[in-house]
Amino acid sequence: MLIVMRQSASGDDVKKVIDRIESLGWEAKPIPGEERTAIGVLRNPGATDPALFLDIPGVREVIPVSKPYKLVSREMHPEDTVIELGNGKVAIGGEKLVVMAGPCAVESEKQALAIAEEVKKAGASLFRAGAFKPRSSPYSFQGLGKKGLEILAKVREETGLFIVTEATDHEVCDLVEEYADIIQIGTRNMQNYRLLRRAGQAKKPVLLKRGMSATLDEFFMAAEYIMSEGNSQVILCERGIRTFVRHSRNTLDLNAVPYIRRESHLPIVIDPSHAAGRRDQVVPLARASAAVGIHGLLVEVHNNPDKALSDGPQSLYPEQFAQMMQEIRGMNIAV
Amino acid sequence: MLIVMRQSASGDDVKKVIDRIESLGWEAKPIPGEERTAIGVLRNPGATDPALFLDIPGVREVIPVSKPYKLVSREMHPEDTVIELGNGKVAIGGEKLVVMAGPCAVESEKQALAIAEEVKKAGASLFRAGAFKPRSSPYSFQGLGKKGLEILAKVREETGLFIVTEATDHEVCDLVEEYADIIQIGTRNMQNYRLLRRAGQAKKPVLLKRGMSATLDEFFMAAEYIMSEGNSQVILCERGIRTFVRHSRNTLDLNAVPYIRRESHLPIVIDPSHAAGRRDQVVPLARASAAVGIHGLLVEVHNNPDKALSDGPQSLYPEQFAQMMQEIRGMNIAV
Amino acid sequence: MLIVMRQSASGDDVKKVIDRIESLGWEAKPIPGEERTAIGVLRNPGATDPALFLDIPGVREVIPVSKPYKLVSREMHPEDTVIELGNGKVAIGGEKLVVMAGPCAVESEKQALAIAEEVKKAGASLFRAGAFKPRSSPYSFQGLGKKGLEILAKVREETGLFIVTEATDHEVCDLVEEYADIIQIGTRNMQNYRLLRRAGQAKKPVLLKRGMSATLDEFFMAAEYIMSEGNSQVILCERGIRTFVRHSRNTLDLNAVPYIRRESHLPIVIDPSHAAGRRDQVVPLARASAAVGIHGLLVEVHNNPDKALSDGPQSLYPEQFAQMMQEIRGMNIAV
Amino acid sequence: MLIVMRQSASGDDVKKVIDRIESLGWEAKPIPGEERTAIGVLRNPGATDPALFLDIPGVREVIPVSKPYKLVSREMHPEDTVIELGNGKVAIGGEKLVVMAGPCAVESEKQALAIAEEVKKAGASLFRAGAFKPRSSPYSFQGLGKKGLEILAKVREETGLFIVTEATDHEVCDLVEEYADIIQIGTRNMQNYRLLRRAGQAKKPVLLKRGMSATLDEFFMAAEYIMSEGNSQVILCERGIRTFVRHSRNTLDLNAVPYIRRESHLPIVIDPSHAAGRRDQVVPLARASAAVGIHGLLVEVHNNPDKALSDGPQSLYPEQFAQMMQEIRGMNIAV
Repeated sequence: MLIVMRQSASGDDVKKVIDRIESLGWEAKPIPGEERTAIGVLRNPGATDPALFLDIPGVREVIPVSKPYKLVSREMHPEDTVIELGNGKVAIGGEKLVVMAGPCAVESEKQALAIAEEVKKAGASLFRAGAFKPRSSPYSFQGLGKKGLEILAKVREETGLFIVTEATDHEVCDLVEEYADIIQIGTRNMQNYRLLRRAGQAKKPVLLKRGMSATLDEFFMAAEYIMSEGNSQVILCERGIRTFVRHSRNTLDLNAVPYIRRESHLPIVIDPSHAAGRRDQVVPLARASAAVGIHGLLVEVHNNPDKALSDGPQSLYPEQFAQMMQEIRGMNIAV
Repeated sequence: MLIVMRQSASGDDVKKVIDRIESLGWEAKPIPGEERTAIGVLRNPGATDPALFLDIPGVREVIPVSKPYKLVSREMHPEDTVIELGNGKVAIGGEKLVVMAGPCAVESEKQALAIAEEVKKAGASLFRAGAFKPRSSPYSFQGLGKKGLEILAKVREETGLFIVTEATDHEVCDLVEEYADIIQIGTRNMQNYRLLRRAGQAKKPVLLKRGMSATLDEFFMAAEYIMSEGNSQVILCERGIRTFVRHSRNTLDLNAVPYIRRESHLPIVIDPSHAAGRRDQVVPLARASAAVGIHGLLVEVHNNPDKALSDGPQSLYPEQFAQMMQEIRGMNIAV
Repeated sequence: MLIVMRQSASGDDVKKVIDRIESLGWEAKPIPGEERTAIGVLRNPGATDPALFLDIPGVREVIPVSKPYKLVSREMHPEDTVIELGNGKVAIGGEKLVVMAGPCAVESEKQALAIAEEVKKAGASLFRAGAFKPRSSPYSFQGLGKKGLEILAKVREETGLFIVTEATDHEVCDLVEEYADIIQIGTRNMQNYRLLRRAGQAKKPVLLKRGMSATLDEFFMAAEYIMSEGNSQVILCERGIRTFVRHSRNTLDLNAVPYIRRESHLPIVIDPSHAAGRRDQVVPLARASAAVGIHGLLVEVHNNPDKALSDGPQSLYPEQFAQMMQEIRGMNIAV
Repeated sequence: MLIVMRQSASGDDVKKVIDRIESLGWEAKPIPGEERTAIGVLRNPGATDPALFLDIPGVREVIPVSKPYKLVSREMHPEDTVIELGNGKVAIGGEKLVVMAGPCAVESEKQALAIAEEVKKAGASLFRAGAFKPRSSPYSFQGLGKKGLEILAKVREETGLFIVTEATDHEVCDLVEEYADIIQIGTRNMQNYRLLRRAGQAKKPVLLKRGMSATLDEFFMAAEYIMSEGNSQVILCERGIRTFVRHSRNTLDLNAVPYIRRESHLPIVIDPSHAAGRRDQVVPLARASAAVGIHGLLVEVHNNPDKALSDGPQSLYPEQFAQMMQEIRGMNIAV
């Protein structure tokens, strides 16, 4: 933390700041400049709230310096983390783009198997579908629950696709951990700390979706919660942020990708379906995501989106998905 | 929902839209205009996703019309809801501004009682303090838990102040319901549907904080979750939204207040402390909130903010809080 | 500027940073910490772009410290600036809230005089109305131009109200300077530097509206442009920012007010009409603005808003404006 | 426009709405539903302000339907517009990705020629560089002016590259039109209507940058200003929008691209340099932009960015630019 004093600050003002720093058990390092003094704060335990010093007379501004996360940081772990499924049959975080595809929700065994066959044929490695659904309306379909998980297990058995599915709270996480290959934590739960801790105790990798208005620091802190419980297999998922625009449900934040790759060792995947919210934007965004340089894609595919019980309108038809895969391969990206 | 066709749309395109509407069991009402045709959708069950029609040739735009909430709406309940505590000793939703004040977290009985005496003296009716704390860092103080609730009960007994405190998940809600007068649901949990349902089954009023980037429709839908379980005692709390600005932690959204009061019958309170994130903005925002026309204020007060275990820097000192109350009274607002 | 090195940065990396700092003619001040080294940059000319150092190996982050503005800063001018009109008949920046009211655009002498009489009677000190209008559609009414200014002069003569009106570009500014008492620069022109420079050469005070997505640093820099040309009579105007919300045209940023008052000596006024964009939110926001602590209000009033040639729907009726003034006085705020 | 009535609205309320619609000379088309009545508005001249009806009793919501732009719309011009330079030597809007590259500002003939040679060799078709610079600080380098334009003409002569350069106001536009092949209008001037009109009278194509917080409707309306004066050669440029994020200067809005291509016939190019604001994000965003499907790229390249007089830190080194071009070609995209 750096505390910037006003030009008019007196020696007494500076002393008060130093006293408060030291009373907190930290170390103060004054940096006298031509125009004003700044005071560096050392030995503080991670990020500290700037407002702690703003009411001392003569303080102009307080600037945070330390990052609050540790385990997530590339500083602690310089090499890329690679997460393997099935003894290396699939590796997320390596050179190859891993594609996870499937419907928003499991609706029936027949539907799930039909879509799974299609996405497998087109080149997907994982099947994604919700058994438990967090729905913004209490009057909407909430998922098949345990029965949905059983269908997902059947899909894995019959197709060889691995399964990623969402745990909507810490209790449900027990069941999801039992059935899934990757436990998904949804956007709205990015700061559900009880769930994050539970996922941190799981023996399965966790795919963590970024909150709709989360800064990358907040996103990393959510991953830190999981890792601080001992689970280092975390996959970060960008899925669009909330902005002022009206032409799409969210705005895909591709600027985040090079920043995340520089700052963290964790694999990063993108969900173009939720970033778009409308079918006609999904394929272009999938191509852009593949090109920006990521480790995986999470795509909604439905064989009958108009009749889907949830989120249909952003789902691709199987032939659109196959076309998307072909276009990505056409860009010389290994899928 | 209104579907707007392109000028170049053929009769066949229009027919396809009508067919899809009817295949969903709804009613289509074409509105031919000079330049183009629009098609109204009737009998659809609440809000529907616009993307459902975007891929039909000739469709230019799809505009949602219905609101997804019902119980929250003033249409269903034209009179203001007033929530009473202690047989009418306190009424939230009436003429008087109800002030809830206290520290971010319960730290000890001594601290809680000392602050409670101060805020009571200045005119607060409720004591607010967290026993369970949702913290963005896994390394931060997480609250005293049940012991904190017992201290809050002691505060009520000794001071007569009613208690509002947060339930951070559905399990914790059992305990919070037992001890609190009002159950608070925090910003990060606004879309924790399991918790919302649990709060909907509680016999106590619920104070629901708006999510950091929630639209008012989403905010109302979260309240609808609670009400759909049978609990009609919901208090809405605006606490600042996430914007591009850098001079405050959040931006207090006062435009929301007249909109909420027009659209819903539920009482609305404001939390200027979290909207500011820094002590020097809290009192001006509290005055502005009182002036815009609300039913209550939720304010952080600490007797030693520099040493507070959490969120200290946005807490007022007791004398600042007393000054704030005096300033609000000076504006001829009944507190 | 503060350059934060990675933990793994070598002595060589640190040296490269110091070399670049010195090659730019600045001074480097290394601050070795327990975990990592940070390097303070001194003698740099105001704000510098962080990206200048981001590609040196071992650099983790670059944090700007200096503020780019000088004349606008309270550090250079500790006392509040008070801007007087008519030899002190009106003082903007003092204790009294100065109210500027009138229609969006001058439409005719009859209309202007009628509204001016009404707002004067209710307590306004200035008449606001556009002779030149920046309209987002090329097909909309663009203002009466010079004839509009002549009508405004007539209004001043007949009512004694001072005149504030917009200069939409640097050429138009000559005429506006001749007729107006305060030259207004609109939101869309906040970074029209040619116009800012021209206004800086004017002999009249300038009311500068904040851009729709301007940070306060950018807002201050726009004021700095004006002041750097010699005109120190600048009034800052907050008028709502662009956010994700859908319930209002903009979001009034009241958090900005205490920050501006702390950081700058310039007077600050608020335009609740544009912050709302709809009539039913204007009066509540005007009350809130008065309560937060500002120097003036800019309010749209029209005697026949439904027929107004521009922006009618956010204009108050004269009786609503009178009611608003009464409510503000009822809050014991001197108007 | 669609006006949605409350359930409780009386026949009288509906009549008042119809009366107001008709008094404005428009046509009202009531759509009675099961729960409530909605009223379509026909024959209104383009977009109308919803607030015009919000204060009539019984009105719940007013929803705009018409789009305010015409000439920009694909409805008026179904085929893609292709803009040719040099009798078809370069075509913007066709199959090939047109790359425009060069420094932020012209600093000297030597610098300009050196960079131009490099970007030409790597495959650029246009040279971009500012002779007039809009700078957010009055104390920054403002460009070489006319001398800069003469240098640009020299660059064209010697390299065969076409020239795109910014006109910062309507007066400067005369000179820029004389020297440039494409007139650029900058982000901060997207709503400088005087400049837009002047550019609409020019005989050269115009590259219009999106404002930092402009909706696509507003962006289209700015293009409409230009086209309404008779210049149909407009190129739209997405360059990042302002959001809450802290890890980049702006957020590149790729969701806008498929929307723009569906809605308008104008060519669309992307400026990844300003969208990033830092060198390490530019190449990934350029790849993503090329993949999403656009007509051109605008990239900053400098042979000595650390010493650049403006905006250096987001400029690529020539070898990075060459690498970027190679990567795009590697994705099988024709450049």
